[in-house]
Amino acid sequence: MSGFYADKFSEDVGSFFRSPVREIFKKVDLNAIYSFAGGYPSAETFPMEEIRRTMSEVIDKYGSKAFQYGATQGVPELREEVAKRCGVTVDRVQITSSSQQGIDVCTRVLVNPGDVILTSSPSYLGALQSFRSYRADIRGVKHNPDLEAFKQSYEAVIEQVKTEGKQIKFLYMIPDFQNPSGESLTLEERKMLVGLAQKHDFLIVEDSPYRELRYEGEHIPTMYSLDPDRVIHLGSFSKIFAPGFRLGWAIAHPEILDKIYVCKQSLDLCPPIFDQYVAAEFLASGRLDENLLKSIELYKGKRDLLLGLLEEHMPEGVTWTHPEGGLFLFLTMPEGFDAVKFYDKALDAGVAYVAGEFFHPDGSGKNTMRMNFSFMSPQKITEGVKLLATLL
Amino acid sequence: MSGFYADKFSEDVGSFFRSPVREIFKKVDLNAIYSFAGGYPSAETFPMEEIRRTMSEVIDKYGSKAFQYGATQGVPELREEVAKRCGVTVDRVQITSSSQQGIDVCTRVLVNPGDVILTSSPSYLGALQSFRSYRADIRGVKHNPDLEAFKQSYEAVIEQVKTEGKQIKFLYMIPDFQNPSGESLTLEERKMLVGLAQKHDFLIVEDSPYRELRYEGEHIPTMYSLDPDRVIHLGSFSKIFAPGFRLGWAIAHPEILDKIYVCKQSLDLCPPIFDQYVAAEFLASGRLDENLLKSIELYKGKRDLLLGLLEEHMPEGVTWTHPEGGLFLFLTMPEGFDAVKFYDKALDAGVAYVAGEFFHPDGSGKNTMRMNFSFMSPQKITEGVKLLATLL
Repeated sequence: MSGFYADKFSEDVGSFFRSPVREIFKKVDLNAIYSFAGGYPSAETFPMEEIRRTMSEVIDKYGSKAFQYGATQGVPELREEVAKRCGVTVDRVQITSSSQQGIDVCTRVLVNPGDVILTSSPSYLGALQSFRSYRADIRGVKHNPDLEAFKQSYEAVIEQVKTEGKQIKFLYMIPDFQNPSGESLTLEERKMLVGLAQKHDFLIVEDSPYRELRYEGEHIPTMYSLDPDRVIHLGSFSKIFAPGFRLGWAIAHPEILDKIYVCKQSLDLCPPIFDQYVAAEFLASGRLDENLLKSIELYKGKRDLLLGLLEEHMPEGVTWTHPEGGLFLFLTMPEGFDAVKFYDKALDAGVAYVAGEFFHPDGSGKNTMRMNFSFMSPQKITEGVKLLATLL
Repeated sequence: MSGFYADKFSEDVGSFFRSPVREIFKKVDLNAIYSFAGGYPSAETFPMEEIRRTMSEVIDKYGSKAFQYGATQGVPELREEVAKRCGVTVDRVQITSSSQQGIDVCTRVLVNPGDVILTSSPSYLGALQSFRSYRADIRGVKHNPDLEAFKQSYEAVIEQVKTEGKQIKFLYMIPDFQNPSGESLTLEERKMLVGLAQKHDFLIVEDSPYRELRYEGEHIPTMYSLDPDRVIHLGSFSKIFAPGFRLGWAIAHPEILDKIYVCKQSLDLCPPIFDQYVAAEFLASGRLDENLLKSIELYKGKRDLLLGLLEEHMPEGVTWTHPEGGLFLFLTMPEGFDAVKFYDKALDAGVAYVAGEFFHPDGSGKNTMRMNFSFMSPQKITEGVKLLATLL
């Protein structure tokens, strides 16, 4: 940075904003390489002709209202559809301008600098980036398949935080098909975590953009359903409809939404209006669910393909998760492997992923990487895995 | 607030978030009353059939790209159109998810708690709300038609801030048809303010959503054009196209945009994609300019109507500004009048405005109100003014 602007930025920007993967997405044309990097849905799943028809219907039905300013909470039609879908009352629904905004706005209304946010390790890097920008003290806890040991890991961190005289503001979790691991929390794990939140009196932010993309097994109750006044549930249209509309939702107690409302007024006044009506019509007409079924079928096929290819081509010592849904799986290479360093080599050869280190609040996980299986065609997935396996 | 959430919100929310006009917009159906309150464009100006056609064209031209995630800086096509329109290079253009977001994101990347933001008094309340949420120390300066005296007012505040050992991060101004006053800064005033920023080394945020809505007189150069490396220029599609798309732009030095880029990644990843392509097509095809000419004609007529009605009906002792463009004029009642208290009476009778006090950083201006003339039909403007005059 030149001297001119050196003293002009806020400390947040200087010290706490980080964007570890910005270069990946800034410089690379994802269509020109084998990209396991982004969390992009497949373009095939966008119901273009139905969207075209719906857009025209929205103009006929709502007229100029669809292009005017609208309510900060979201247009009533979409709030009602989301309320029905999530089984809550409308006063518990705030439409957000993307579920990333949902994460950011929750952090903004809840966290003072130095407050603790508990999360899993690894966790979604876009959330970690938002938490850091508010100078939160992020504590990550590794998963443990033994429920009692898992609970003890959390309790140890909670005790440590108390010893330091700090306050835990919330636990951030992605219980369904987590980003980046692809794994889900069992019902018992969800109950255990909600119990800890009740016992130690902190909130939970449940980020659930992939929940409806389940390819096998039974749906597990949301953490929200276990304690609706303590959990803020975030949802997204990006993975079940289209990310280009930048629409998501937050489900929470009206007192929390009241704060989010005030915050959102100074952020962007209201979510995109026309797009909200399109989403509302898609939900109400059942088109979204029809389309979702097609997406699930497509992604299930791609997941199975990727799992098969990894089995066939990956060298000894490489392991991976087996996600029951969502868009990602997580690879673990032998100790000593550095996925950040390896990235340049991989990109030169034409294959991209996201290094697992970026998802670990403490910078561990150097020998891991996240692989997306939703974006590319089966042919490109096949060629990409072969290429990556050869490089490894 | 119930006890349960009392210790869970951030101090920002507790102490610094304010939304003085939320009740106006939350509870009132603006179509059912005489509303001089909002800053809404007239629904007549939305080119519905052309938008419908353009949307279909966008689907044909861009296909699934229009529904996928996109670049954080905005889609290249829209950035190029905005660059052309503003006479800057593309690397100086960031598309924002509304120009309210532009204000918020500038504050976020520039301001530490306690830093000073200079502005006019009155100034846009949505900006003041955002500044407060970042705990900025807002100093408002009243306009003075005498240039030297106006300069001295600013210098006095700047000296005071230095005495206090604080840093001025930026001057926030709406030089064209200001919200709420409707008045513009002369070229000499702009030069004077840019000179002060250069002398005392602070930045300027030039908020310019109304600039293209000029009904008489000549365009005055932007503050940005006077020092492109020191001024961040914010623009909006809300008043010249349609607010329902929630799109605006920030023009600034690439080093500043680089920080905004990182910040925006954790805010919402990218602006709405489909809407950006629609706006880009509207700009490129010249449809936006055709439509803008119609808006200018319509709003000029409404401004003239309102000015005539005020002249005819307002009681002695009430004065108002004569805006050469934009959406607002500003009324001053005799000393002792309280526009906040009067508001309930007015609303009961069916007429709404925004009390001027909310636009004054120091809570002065109790005897003022902002009137919008873009939203209502000429008939409703006429009836509304008569009603308001009778109540006054």
